[in-house]
Amino acid sequence: MKNGILALIFLTFFTLSAQSDDRPNFVVIFCDDLGYGDIGSFGHPIIQTPNIDRMAVEGQKWTQFYVADPVCTPSRAGLLTGRYPIRNGMTSSKRHVFFPDSPNGLPLEEITIAEVLKTRSYATAAIGKWHLGHLPKFLPQQQGFDYYFGIPYSNDMDSDQWGKYLKEAEDPDYFSKTEFFNVPLIENSQVIERPADQTTITKRYTQKAVQFIEQNKEQPFFLYLAHSMPHIPLFVSEEFRGRSKASLYVDVIEEIDWSVGEVLKTLEKNQLDQNTIVVFTSDNGPWLLFKTHGGSAGPLRAGKGTTFEGGQRVPTVFWGPGKVTPGVINQMGATLDLLPTFANLSGAQLPSDRKLDGYDLSQVLTKKAKSPRKDFYYWAFAELHGYRNEQYKIHIKQREVIHYGRETIVLERPELYDLKADISEKHDLADNFPEILSDLMGTMDLHLKDVADAIPDQLADRMPKD
Amino acid sequence: MKNGILALIFLTFFTLSAQSDDRPNFVVIFCDDLGYGDIGSFGHPIIQTPNIDRMAVEGQKWTQFYVADPVCTPSRAGLLTGRYPIRNGMTSSKRHVFFPDSPNGLPLEEITIAEVLKTRSYATAAIGKWHLGHLPKFLPQQQGFDYYFGIPYSNDMDSDQWGKYLKEAEDPDYFSKTEFFNVPLIENSQVIERPADQTTITKRYTQKAVQFIEQNKEQPFFLYLAHSMPHIPLFVSEEFRGRSKASLYVDVIEEIDWSVGEVLKTLEKNQLDQNTIVVFTSDNGPWLLFKTHGGSAGPLRAGKGTTFEGGQRVPTVFWGPGKVTPGVINQMGATLDLLPTFANLSGAQLPSDRKLDGYDLSQVLTKKAKSPRKDFYYWAFAELHGYRNEQYKIHIKQREVIHYGRETIVLERPELYDLKADISEKHDLADNFPEILSDLMGTMDLHLKDVADAIPDQLADRMPKD
Repeated sequence: MKNGILALIFLTFFTLSAQSDDRPNFVVIFCDDLGYGDIGSFGHPIIQTPNIDRMAVEGQKWTQFYVADPVCTPSRAGLLTGRYPIRNGMTSSKRHVFFPDSPNGLPLEEITIAEVLKTRSYATAAIGKWHLGHLPKFLPQQQGFDYYFGIPYSNDMDSDQWGKYLKEAEDPDYFSKTEFFNVPLIENSQVIERPADQTTITKRYTQKAVQFIEQNKEQPFFLYLAHSMPHIPLFVSEEFRGRSKASLYVDVIEEIDWSVGEVLKTLEKNQLDQNTIVVFTSDNGPWLLFKTHGGSAGPLRAGKGTTFEGGQRVPTVFWGPGKVTPGVINQMGATLDLLPTFANLSGAQLPSDRKLDGYDLSQVLTKKAKSPRKDFYYWAFAELHGYRNEQYKIHIKQREVIHYGRETIVLERPELYDLKADISEKHDLADNFPEILSDLMGTMDLHLKDVADAIPDQLADRMPKD
Repeated sequence: MKNGILALIFLTFFTLSAQSDDRPNFVVIFCDDLGYGDIGSFGHPIIQTPNIDRMAVEGQKWTQFYVADPVCTPSRAGLLTGRYPIRNGMTSSKRHVFFPDSPNGLPLEEITIAEVLKTRSYATAAIGKWHLGHLPKFLPQQQGFDYYFGIPYSNDMDSDQWGKYLKEAEDPDYFSKTEFFNVPLIENSQVIERPADQTTITKRYTQKAVQFIEQNKEQPFFLYLAHSMPHIPLFVSEEFRGRSKASLYVDVIEEIDWSVGEVLKTLEKNQLDQNTIVVFTSDNGPWLLFKTHGGSAGPLRAGKGTTFEGGQRVPTVFWGPGKVTPGVINQMGATLDLLPTFANLSGAQLPSDRKLDGYDLSQVLTKKAKSPRKDFYYWAFAELHGYRNEQYKIHIKQREVIHYGRETIVLERPELYDLKADISEKHDLADNFPEILSDLMGTMDLHLKDVADAIPDQLADRMPKD
């Protein structure tokens, strides 16, 4: 936040003077590569997720909730800043995420949810995967978080054993080896373990999350709990390994569901449940390339890395018995909306010196009002692939499955889908509705102009080799 | 039942002597071509089904529940008799269902659920689509039902306007015309309307169902409510037309959900809910050929007419606050199991002079015991296509989509799917597990021997033309 400090001094002045005790706590549980269909209440026939399902019944189940981008780094940047990653240089046509040789991170002048909530004196913690710059100057404590515990990039990185892993992982019962991936585990800014023992990582994130809640129950807090799972390579603790009697992937999700249960239990035990909102969601769709080690997008087309619905629509639940009116919300929302929503609910001001792409969903959460989000832009790899309004989606570029190459196919002509009648994007209606197509094209053009003042690509650079 | 009467006299003798007052009522709500993914709690992102979802939360949501066959007539025969349709001549390689020119019906010596429950003095009604013989001697009153109200075969039959309908229905907003389909509406054995006004048919079935419950609240009853919808051509009442603001298909399902709500309300109003078990399910998967007029199998492969999971696995909920222990049941069950389950719960004896294929699920319903069903045979068009145990499925024949032609592809070699790790049947493991494959082949051979004494094909015949 170094460079954003002037904007924040201004915010702080106004918000502190309006301080009230009605500052709810926020917990964001953010999975990695969890598909739309990987939760019981979102239709998975095998995976048992009683805790998340309970959140869905007692809270709000959102069936059209989007991530800002179909891959990891830009998706996280979008959630934390409320801005499409094209605006803050967090999407690239050259390298799709940060790697261990990336010299950059989320620009420090960007304002994160943690920084917004700091103006209202929240305690803040980031636990789990960061992936917005692994060098000390880009770690969570530089972006408004009091505490950090986790891995700085993806759990499959820093490996010279990738080929071996891929071969061994063809056996559906394969249990990944920690030593193949030289990923560091960091506490605040210190590497405390390398390679991170990923077998116990979901469990340890959970312990740290519970501890953070217990230690901060006297003041409002924001907990960003970003699980490394179920991104490949899959790991589970001994306690959950084989427990589902289904598959390793199922075991992994069931351990995450256990973790959700621990968080809810901690909130309830400390009488914090009436004043806390917990959001459960994912960073993008399932990585279908990895077959039974990847998840399911349910009825949605394609997965991670694509701008079909399976790439960007994620299973999302808001829970908060004292705040959230229960129901199924089949209107739109996005991770981009969390920043404005939390700002409103906490009484914080929004950054006024930059463009935001999020909508304030607080009235939907508390009163089941109609969602203010009426459309969504599908960005991937620094290109605008598509756009939707409440009924129709236009698609002008596509990638069916993310591979290691990053070829984007430009469609010969735009395609048009009716997302209400055709949830799986099977039936192109471009010929039936040329006027709608042309309207949506016009809206995309305006959006492209609106993002023209973007921060340049921060992902493409590599550190010089020794 | 005429020819099954000796067997039943025997049954009646034993069961009446053991009569108790603990005879629960049974309501089976059976949709037509509703897909696995077409219900909110089974993952549909658009369709709102609060009543069925409430049943799922208060009761048991079954995620691996099968129909006896992927098309209409045999599926219904399997449900009502607890026998694979190959045993009672209700599946054919020549004509896949009964048509208006079919001279036959479900053989009268077959024993239906209604006949079994009659031995325990249940009042019985069939409301909705029958499709087990439209001639008077095959209608529901000949098979144990006191009352019948509905259409005798599919709602798209008896039409000389099919081509016109198909062309018009390409418009996703098309609202079907009643006069295109000369389907009779029958009460008991009288045609009371022709063509049936299908616009109000879901509403009228519901009124008759409510009336039957109200009139029989002093004695145990069995209501078989077999909706004609969402089989194409789609119809909804004026009240529901356009109400979802999504699509005609969505309107249709939301009217069915309303109907479910009326049934539940009637049970509750009459204090019958504690002693009633309501089952909600479908006769086979979605008819994908009809695009946005067909439903969604959610994450499952293919639809109606196929023996992939999308053809035979259906969204199923058991509700009964006084009887059913709530939970998600991700073990197997089948419509074949309803007859033995209802027999046990009502204190009726099972027919002992014939082979049954159902399992008694009563301990799963009441105590969440492990399901006794550990496997399932996939039959279609009088051919055994596949078999599954708790983890693996072998597939030896297939049809991807049902067309009007009925070509079955014999696979060059059997395929093997892990249904726990690979819910969408994407990854053939035949090469990985040759021993499992050979075990499953052996089990299929034994089953083929077991059904060798079947009643001959009743579907193939046509009435002589005048």
